[in-house]
Amino acid sequence: MNFSSDNVTEVCPEIMAALVAANEGTMMPYGADEYTERLETKFSSIFETPVKVFPVATGSAANALALSTIAPGYGAIYCHAESDINVDECCAPGFYTGGAKLVTVNGTDAQINPSELSKTLEKGGRGIVHYAQPAGVSLTQATEAGTVYLPEDIDEIAKITHGHNLCLHIDGARFANAVVSLDCAPADITWRLGVDVMSFGATKNGAMAAEAVIFFNQDLAKTFGYRCKRGGHLLSKMRFLSAQLEAYITDDLWLKNAGHANQMASRLAQGLVEFPWVRLCHPVEANEIFVELPESVVDGLRADGFEFLVWQKGTLPIIRLVTAFNTKEEDVDGFLASVKRYSVIDLMEKRE
Amino acid sequence: MNFSSDNVTEVCPEIMAALVAANEGTMMPYGADEYTERLETKFSSIFETPVKVFPVATGSAANALALSTIAPGYGAIYCHAESDINVDECCAPGFYTGGAKLVTVNGTDAQINPSELSKTLEKGGRGIVHYAQPAGVSLTQATEAGTVYLPEDIDEIAKITHGHNLCLHIDGARFANAVVSLDCAPADITWRLGVDVMSFGATKNGAMAAEAVIFFNQDLAKTFGYRCKRGGHLLSKMRFLSAQLEAYITDDLWLKNAGHANQMASRLAQGLVEFPWVRLCHPVEANEIFVELPESVVDGLRADGFEFLVWQKGTLPIIRLVTAFNTKEEDVDGFLASVKRYSVIDLMEKRE
Amino acid sequence: MNFSSDNVTEVCPEIMAALVAANEGTMMPYGADEYTERLETKFSSIFETPVKVFPVATGSAANALALSTIAPGYGAIYCHAESDINVDECCAPGFYTGGAKLVTVNGTDAQINPSELSKTLEKGGRGIVHYAQPAGVSLTQATEAGTVYLPEDIDEIAKITHGHNLCLHIDGARFANAVVSLDCAPADITWRLGVDVMSFGATKNGAMAAEAVIFFNQDLAKTFGYRCKRGGHLLSKMRFLSAQLEAYITDDLWLKNAGHANQMASRLAQGLVEFPWVRLCHPVEANEIFVELPESVVDGLRADGFEFLVWQKGTLPIIRLVTAFNTKEEDVDGFLASVKRYSVIDLMEKRE
Amino acid sequence: MNFSSDNVTEVCPEIMAALVAANEGTMMPYGADEYTERLETKFSSIFETPVKVFPVATGSAANALALSTIAPGYGAIYCHAESDINVDECCAPGFYTGGAKLVTVNGTDAQINPSELSKTLEKGGRGIVHYAQPAGVSLTQATEAGTVYLPEDIDEIAKITHGHNLCLHIDGARFANAVVSLDCAPADITWRLGVDVMSFGATKNGAMAAEAVIFFNQDLAKTFGYRCKRGGHLLSKMRFLSAQLEAYITDDLWLKNAGHANQMASRLAQGLVEFPWVRLCHPVEANEIFVELPESVVDGLRADGFEFLVWQKGTLPIIRLVTAFNTKEEDVDGFLASVKRYSVIDLMEKRE
Repeated sequence: MNFSSDNVTEVCPEIMAALVAANEGTMMPYGADEYTERLETKFSSIFETPVKVFPVATGSAANALALSTIAPGYGAIYCHAESDINVDECCAPGFYTGGAKLVTVNGTDAQINPSELSKTLEKGGRGIVHYAQPAGVSLTQATEAGTVYLPEDIDEIAKITHGHNLCLHIDGARFANAVVSLDCAPADITWRLGVDVMSFGATKNGAMAAEAVIFFNQDLAKTFGYRCKRGGHLLSKMRFLSAQLEAYITDDLWLKNAGHANQMASRLAQGLVEFPWVRLCHPVEANEIFVELPESVVDGLRADGFEFLVWQKGTLPIIRLVTAFNTKEEDVDGFLASVKRYSVIDLMEKRE
Repeated sequence: MNFSSDNVTEVCPEIMAALVAANEGTMMPYGADEYTERLETKFSSIFETPVKVFPVATGSAANALALSTIAPGYGAIYCHAESDINVDECCAPGFYTGGAKLVTVNGTDAQINPSELSKTLEKGGRGIVHYAQPAGVSLTQATEAGTVYLPEDIDEIAKITHGHNLCLHIDGARFANAVVSLDCAPADITWRLGVDVMSFGATKNGAMAAEAVIFFNQDLAKTFGYRCKRGGHLLSKMRFLSAQLEAYITDDLWLKNAGHANQMASRLAQGLVEFPWVRLCHPVEANEIFVELPESVVDGLRADGFEFLVWQKGTLPIIRLVTAFNTKEEDVDGFLASVKRYSVIDLMEKRE
Repeated sequence: MNFSSDNVTEVCPEIMAALVAANEGTMMPYGADEYTERLETKFSSIFETPVKVFPVATGSAANALALSTIAPGYGAIYCHAESDINVDECCAPGFYTGGAKLVTVNGTDAQINPSELSKTLEKGGRGIVHYAQPAGVSLTQATEAGTVYLPEDIDEIAKITHGHNLCLHIDGARFANAVVSLDCAPADITWRLGVDVMSFGATKNGAMAAEAVIFFNQDLAKTFGYRCKRGGHLLSKMRFLSAQLEAYITDDLWLKNAGHANQMASRLAQGLVEFPWVRLCHPVEANEIFVELPESVVDGLRADGFEFLVWQKGTLPIIRLVTAFNTKEEDVDGFLASVKRYSVIDLMEKRE
Repeated sequence: MNFSSDNVTEVCPEIMAALVAANEGTMMPYGADEYTERLETKFSSIFETPVKVFPVATGSAANALALSTIAPGYGAIYCHAESDINVDECCAPGFYTGGAKLVTVNGTDAQINPSELSKTLEKGGRGIVHYAQPAGVSLTQATEAGTVYLPEDIDEIAKITHGHNLCLHIDGARFANAVVSLDCAPADITWRLGVDVMSFGATKNGAMAAEAVIFFNQDLAKTFGYRCKRGGHLLSKMRFLSAQLEAYITDDLWLKNAGHANQMASRLAQGLVEFPWVRLCHPVEANEIFVELPESVVDGLRADGFEFLVWQKGTLPIIRLVTAFNTKEEDVDGFLASVKRYSVIDLMEKRE
């Protein structure tokens, strides 16, 4: 069983069916199709406010393009050191903004700490020509550590952000997992708190290759079509991208998929903490688990065919386990059984 | 019937089937899957030489990314004024190269005229610090005018290009149509003549959203992975992109699809030239037809439900008709019948 | 004598004196000095309207930075094919705008023809996502051909420009020569006609290294300080740049210098046209002369120690002669005498 | 007296004289003048190895242009958090590289700690497509904290840098101060240890506006002329930039000027540490002093007419004092006397 990431998965059946269904007849290209045209209404309904929606094929594109509407080339974007935009997108934000700087803000569990953000922004140098000019704040929901910002955290961050006249972006590659985790309305953790634009992920939660950039602040959206096109991100047969997104948000599929992934992560975490010597590195609030295990257990799990990433090597390795819409209970239980078996062996060996 | 473009079409059944088949089990992301791993061997076989292959989702991305490996920000890329990179990609080449200049070269039927290229390059200013430095030549095969460069034309252009120490790029959004039209080996109109890198299109010829950047000059490929990633063009569930490309080049599907499209264009063109007052603007050598028709005939065709683009307005409008892998004979014949009917009416009205 | 360019000259005495005078005492850096602070008032007085002024050291910087306030990376800037920004600035506009496209507009004598501009803009594709979006028009005054736009030409161009909601930029590397030539108020050929921003040159007309970017449209100026700094164009000891500009516009020095240069060009041109076989390529309206001369005469002038650029080789070479603030009458007359001598020899040889 | 920075100073007499002397006769532009042509020989002599030299007008330009030869847009440059390129250049490195990332490395006194560099580079992700690719290391000599890297420190950093196949850049805005401080040959702290390229500052040490980018690794220099030009950094009347640099390195002027500045800083520091309650924040090894003083003393110094920057506000303010080539002993002594006077008052007030 592969717990490496939620992007190793298949396309979920409902989305695959939508792709097959969309493959009927000719349709005008570049978004002038009925699927794409319906998206704005449907997303506006889900978010309970009129939004502008632009489908793109990758999360890096969604983030970098969204950030390019916020930050000029001489701008600064504040984010957590562990954020995907800072670590894992190969300078895409710098490329799309024309050179803007990512400034990292401290905080535990991959979450920006509001008072750290305040402190950092106070030294931001707004109006001083030598300094990268504060332009935006980006937070990831759910975070790269598998935790979830509470509405009150976002509220505080948003107030600080707007208090400095900056824009707020959410990298929502796993937004569905956060919504399910918080059991709240999508609006309650986005525009109602002042989020300007978000990357709304679907790929990790059952789609083939589909993300939506959603603008609550519609002024920011005005140039977005050109930005997509010059980035090579405007698909000609756009219907197939939009059809994925439409299926994804129809009949709460996105929440059902995320709900299942979260439950599996929770089951796995609960199983793990029953071993007294296991340390979870972060609260498990979405579909990712970071756990410290003895090396021999890690090797044993590998031998049993489990796949996962070793996140950090140290005295004890930390591994990352990601569950998905299609993770099976028996795989979780099998994983736990393996942990148990190898930890008993480990214990016996140490006693000898 | 929609003759607007070859990107208004469905996905062809073989590629849709491949997508469904690829949706089995977990697979490592970002190209570390078996589909992607097989691509290089398969493309190398088709081109009879080892190539590096990078799948991307759009033709604009393929072109701009490929050109970024050829031209620095202070470079010049020589292309035809009607080329897609010059007209239709919203500054993507300038964006991906960091500011390089497109310099247009004259020639009929959207083809770079080799002696015009020579003349232009002689004034290129190589080594003069004030001038954009000559870096590459890009030609489109089949062209935006529906014509096809002959091998000897490419040979001449390639010799001039390399004689100036530049690289040669082919925008092959409709490369299959050119190969079928010339009835030659793909190698004979690419690397054997000195082509360094090409954008190999599939979307317009039956794929959902799939193009491959193919490097014959493997030195150029070294940085390409990073360029894709920072452009947001590295798909996580890459198997679904690679599966399209694999199906596309398996069992000559790409050539069968293009062959049909070319035949339909040919049938349409032959039908049109039987009307003595019809003027084809360019030789019909692939799957596009540019034809001058009386306004009343254009209106009549519209009324009969035919869709197409009006390419140019003038004394008489010029319309573009594009055929595809799934264009039906009866649609072509129906179109011709409509032309006939409306032109008779037009004639009668003029006589009155 | 060196007629190669007006940038081969010394610094004129008044500006050198100002540099020496500015070298007194400490002064805050980056423009927080009294010289820089005075500039806006002085330029506002010269232009009879409040302007924003930013001193930079080169004309390429002035142009590219100014254009970056007008055109986004997906924008198009309309200019003449012979304009400096199109020919001689090594992709600087593409670099500073992040990839914008220069679209050339036809016209004789290096001047944009207004009706050609209209035609070009009508095909501009405003709002069509595939096209570089029309953003600005840039004209050079005096032009690269040594001609001068009439106020009514600029008026017409400005109306077309603003009629399409674009901004108008003037590359005024030789603006002083144009003002003297037209004998008009600077305001009458700039903001009163709708010019938004200009590069106001001083280097070619007596300064050491000083140009001013002048904003009539002050909205465009808001981000300019950051743009300068991130381009590396904010001098720390700014007083020495500002002191040059201040001296340049004090007591009409700029107009006196340009007036002399224009007179010398006029004297040279009048001398040349007395030879019936001489062809001036353009009207001589500022301080540049483009003239076709027999090869033997060109060689003779070289042998006599005159320096100039061969602009174009053809049946007969075309040479460029540039006069400056310090060109001497005797040098002009000496040049004409040499032309006479060598053309007589040429004639005699041909008769033999 | 103004201790704000070493860029508030005048031009030193020798350099001003050189500018006046260079103002004789016409000279070909863009570096084709005798002054510029001599520079490479002279710098090669100073560095005891053949170097390529490019004069530019600002330190930000020198740094960003130099870094652009090292790092592609998907690259990472390792530097100290307090480095000028990270803090004070308004995203210029990101702009000139096309989006490269600055990754900060810890270390005291604004110096990169070699073992921290090693640790950071081990996590660099070379070859992993998601990560900014390690490209170069940049250190400032003398540092922004007024300290100086020892040759053995640079040696260690260089070995680590090259061990990872990266290039090493030095921001030498105050390089002269470091050379004097270390009393070593310039070669001994640059190319002999493996430095590839440096920004060699003159402006802060007596020039008007002149820095030189010096390439020890000549491969990196090949594209530099184009980079300068497209950045707008190629001066037409280049002789006036080169004349400054020539005078600067003639007869050890650069070392004499820096020597005086260092001595004045030393005198000031020695005077300050005699007050037992004064805390110097960093060792004083060049011409900058960072000192914590009571607020009342800071206010008193201001009242007495001394100018300086408050670097940090805290329980006690930290101020920065910068000496220069023309700082006078009596100004230093006057400053110390003021400190004494206000600290006595401060003490008395506290006793009351």
